[in-house]
Amino acid sequence: MSLTGKLLIGQQTIPGDREIIQGINPATDALLEPAYAGGSAEHVEQACALAWAAFDRYRETALEARAEFIETIAHEIEALGDELIDRAMAETGLPRPRLLGERGRTCQQLRLFARTVRAGEWLDVRVDSAQPQRQPLPRSDLRQRQIALGPVAVFGASNFPLAFSVAGGDTASALAAGCPVIVKAHGAHPGTSELVGRAVARAVKACGLPEGVFSLLYGSGREVGIALVSDPRIKAVGFTGSRSGGLALIKAAQARPEPIPVYAEMSSINPVLLFPAALRNRSQALAEGFVSSLTLGAGQFCTNPGLVIALKGPALDTFIGAAAELIQRSPAQTMLTPGIFNAYESSVNALAENPRARLAAVGQRGTAPNQGQAHIFVADAADFLADHALQAEAFGAASLVVQCAGHEEVREVLEHLEGQLTATLHLDDEDLDQARSLLPTLERKAGRLLVNGWPTGVEVCDAMVHGGPFPATSDPRTTSVGTAAIQRFLRPVCYQDFPDALLPTALKQANPLALRRLLDGQREA
Amino acid sequence: MSLTGKLLIGQQTIPGDREIIQGINPATDALLEPAYAGGSAEHVEQACALAWAAFDRYRETALEARAEFIETIAHEIEALGDELIDRAMAETGLPRPRLLGERGRTCQQLRLFARTVRAGEWLDVRVDSAQPQRQPLPRSDLRQRQIALGPVAVFGASNFPLAFSVAGGDTASALAAGCPVIVKAHGAHPGTSELVGRAVARAVKACGLPEGVFSLLYGSGREVGIALVSDPRIKAVGFTGSRSGGLALIKAAQARPEPIPVYAEMSSINPVLLFPAALRNRSQALAEGFVSSLTLGAGQFCTNPGLVIALKGPALDTFIGAAAELIQRSPAQTMLTPGIFNAYESSVNALAENPRARLAAVGQRGTAPNQGQAHIFVADAADFLADHALQAEAFGAASLVVQCAGHEEVREVLEHLEGQLTATLHLDDEDLDQARSLLPTLERKAGRLLVNGWPTGVEVCDAMVHGGPFPATSDPRTTSVGTAAIQRFLRPVCYQDFPDALLPTALKQANPLALRRLLDGQREA
Repeated sequence: MSLTGKLLIGQQTIPGDREIIQGINPATDALLEPAYAGGSAEHVEQACALAWAAFDRYRETALEARAEFIETIAHEIEALGDELIDRAMAETGLPRPRLLGERGRTCQQLRLFARTVRAGEWLDVRVDSAQPQRQPLPRSDLRQRQIALGPVAVFGASNFPLAFSVAGGDTASALAAGCPVIVKAHGAHPGTSELVGRAVARAVKACGLPEGVFSLLYGSGREVGIALVSDPRIKAVGFTGSRSGGLALIKAAQARPEPIPVYAEMSSINPVLLFPAALRNRSQALAEGFVSSLTLGAGQFCTNPGLVIALKGPALDTFIGAAAELIQRSPAQTMLTPGIFNAYESSVNALAENPRARLAAVGQRGTAPNQGQAHIFVADAADFLADHALQAEAFGAASLVVQCAGHEEVREVLEHLEGQLTATLHLDDEDLDQARSLLPTLERKAGRLLVNGWPTGVEVCDAMVHGGPFPATSDPRTTSVGTAAIQRFLRPVCYQDFPDALLPTALKQANPLALRRLLDGQREA
Repeated sequence: MSLTGKLLIGQQTIPGDREIIQGINPATDALLEPAYAGGSAEHVEQACALAWAAFDRYRETALEARAEFIETIAHEIEALGDELIDRAMAETGLPRPRLLGERGRTCQQLRLFARTVRAGEWLDVRVDSAQPQRQPLPRSDLRQRQIALGPVAVFGASNFPLAFSVAGGDTASALAAGCPVIVKAHGAHPGTSELVGRAVARAVKACGLPEGVFSLLYGSGREVGIALVSDPRIKAVGFTGSRSGGLALIKAAQARPEPIPVYAEMSSINPVLLFPAALRNRSQALAEGFVSSLTLGAGQFCTNPGLVIALKGPALDTFIGAAAELIQRSPAQTMLTPGIFNAYESSVNALAENPRARLAAVGQRGTAPNQGQAHIFVADAADFLADHALQAEAFGAASLVVQCAGHEEVREVLEHLEGQLTATLHLDDEDLDQARSLLPTLERKAGRLLVNGWPTGVEVCDAMVHGGPFPATSDPRTTSVGTAAIQRFLRPVCYQDFPDALLPTALKQANPLALRRLLDGQREA
């Protein structure tokens, strides 16, 4: 399949007429063909009109039909074969095994949402039967279900060109909820985006759905991005990226005559706590696990362990020494884009120049463009508490070890942190009481807590929370990974005293979807 | 019990030091003792500090203990006896039977949330078991539960001095979720607020809970209200009131370093559609039902039927004639406050002066202060579509009948509406197809759809939705009445590879709370 370099508005490929977006191979700085001319407000208008026209029909598709559509997307992505992997490698500098794994994850994610759609629990059907004889007033028949919010704008991430991009978690969960999706492609991987976007469009066609269920736009955040978020037909936004990018979208969404929710996953430094016994008993193994998690994918994970917290002392010194040795041997890695590489360089330079932090180790020099070196810094807790800049995210393989004078200072450091996606505890049996005493703080600070693991793996499943208090995300009530993500795109509607013939299928008295309803206060078996 | 006129901060009664708030009997314009000196930012600080200190403990109370606390509040409110009803009558002008009913509703609402707490479904427990042998990577053990967001600020409504005020739906659902609550009392019923607030505080004490679980402040919206919403320890806001008041709180909540959700229930005109056959077959009965709903409680319901939509013609003329006759005979009714009465007068005067609307009937003149007269206006659909002012809420017993030239104009009027709490359909069998064709529009516009009823009754139950798209509320994903309201004050946390000893009770392997978990993709029986 040859790339067209065009926008995809429903089933139409349409040339853009604004500034060019072009993929760059970060390993060589070479430009990748084709060029993608950006879209304009007029293209946003066309995509929104189609999405709006599709909405009422798409949101009422039968569960089985919707699930099959989502599975068809997975199938179409797999059918792209090596072309997709090769293009994604060229555009991102990520190695083949990682992208093969990410494709697998993306397709499994789609299939998991198909399963979720079929199970129908997301409809959250509640029935309170009429009580015509009730005194002093009769009770009406009341039935509730969830319906889709409306068309959703999705802004893909740079760091997961498949799993968090065109057909990633936001798109999958919005489609599962019954929302048409308009994706603004990330400029870092336009070709990968086109391949996946056309796969989605083929699935729309194959399943006989209205074409407006999916569109893919290219363009600038200022023009296309803000126009999308401001369009009255868009009812929610999914975003993964920088704090400044997320905040700009939130501002636009709040400025609308009808404000809408923005689910922005932004920044997190993912504190890792090393408890005393664990640190004493296995500092070498902890250092190995830490450096391996820190350097995975050049550190370009939302859940990268950017902060280590432990008690100052010989055990921590041993850990830092072991980690420093591993870091010094770690090769530089190609980062996703020249922009990300430059931002990473600025972040580590700022830390290096900060008198409150000390550079403990730096990885090997790069031998090609855009190769980031791993870094470890060390600071005392008092300095960390005194300087907010030390908890800024350095997107890449950099981490700061904070040395605390005692357990209460550990708590103080944790309370001082902004909201996080994850918090990790490394502990042995003797550490349990100390860990338990910090749990209330950790639960308030993060969406996911891990024991004796590393945060960089994010399983796509029912129980995952990839979310957390601001600024980790804009909405801690939600997750952007896992099946609970579907709830972001739903709202409840109540039907009072409806004749059965007028009720939606999910609410009909005979319960044709065999849902376990909340019926008169009891959950059906 | 004698009223103190003081703030209630935890278990302490503390005198305010700002501008006086004093109840007014709207039936006589007489001032009611005592005077309540408003609180300052310092009082907000004290209440927030106590709430924060209480939060970690309160949010982990056992389900049974929390349910008993909420039931104790109901018991303490009932134990106030006639003193509460008498004071509420004096402060609001509402008649005794209405307030007796509202007290019953308030206590039933608390008991329903106690039942919801015990059932534990709100914990939404999800478990994905470890798969250590999985290829290519093992899966961790992942468990998710919901925890409380944090202390919640509640702004009571004027029109339901019990059910939507100090211990109303927002407070009940926040306490059920595990959130401490700080109420800013509505200035229209300070004595009623004190009585109920002290009942809640007695329940806190009787149940041995930390005192910060509940505080009650008096004061100005500008000083106390904004300080509350801006305090970093407050994590969500519940509000019922005017659009301008709600928008001011939302603005303050968005301007915080950490923005927080505001659940504001603001304005709605609650369209009522009269379909042709129903209108032809029973215009007199419809007129009676309509006027009865319109004038209930002097029209001071969020769900008051402020808009009637039907096809122009003899049947509608008959309906309007019958309704006009009933309105002309309807006595004026004391409104809640002089301010609300004056605002209502302004709204109906603006409609009377609007050349696009025609006054069809006005109720009897008042014979005492602050008595509002019912009004019906009529406009053609083309005029309604041309003038946005015609869909402004007139809070009180005023309604506008919009006459449409045909079915497509009905649809156009509906599509033109802002978001609503309710939409009502009056239909006979012959009308079903027309009604069905409008359902997608109605579902997009309103949180609750009714057939052949009137929207003013809002049942407190599992299936109720008292919510809807902006500006009916600030968050259409939620309801402020019914058990689903608890979800507004929760967020998910995931626990990865936790030793059983460190897991919260709800997530322990043995499932000691006997919850129906989502276990490895299957709902437990």
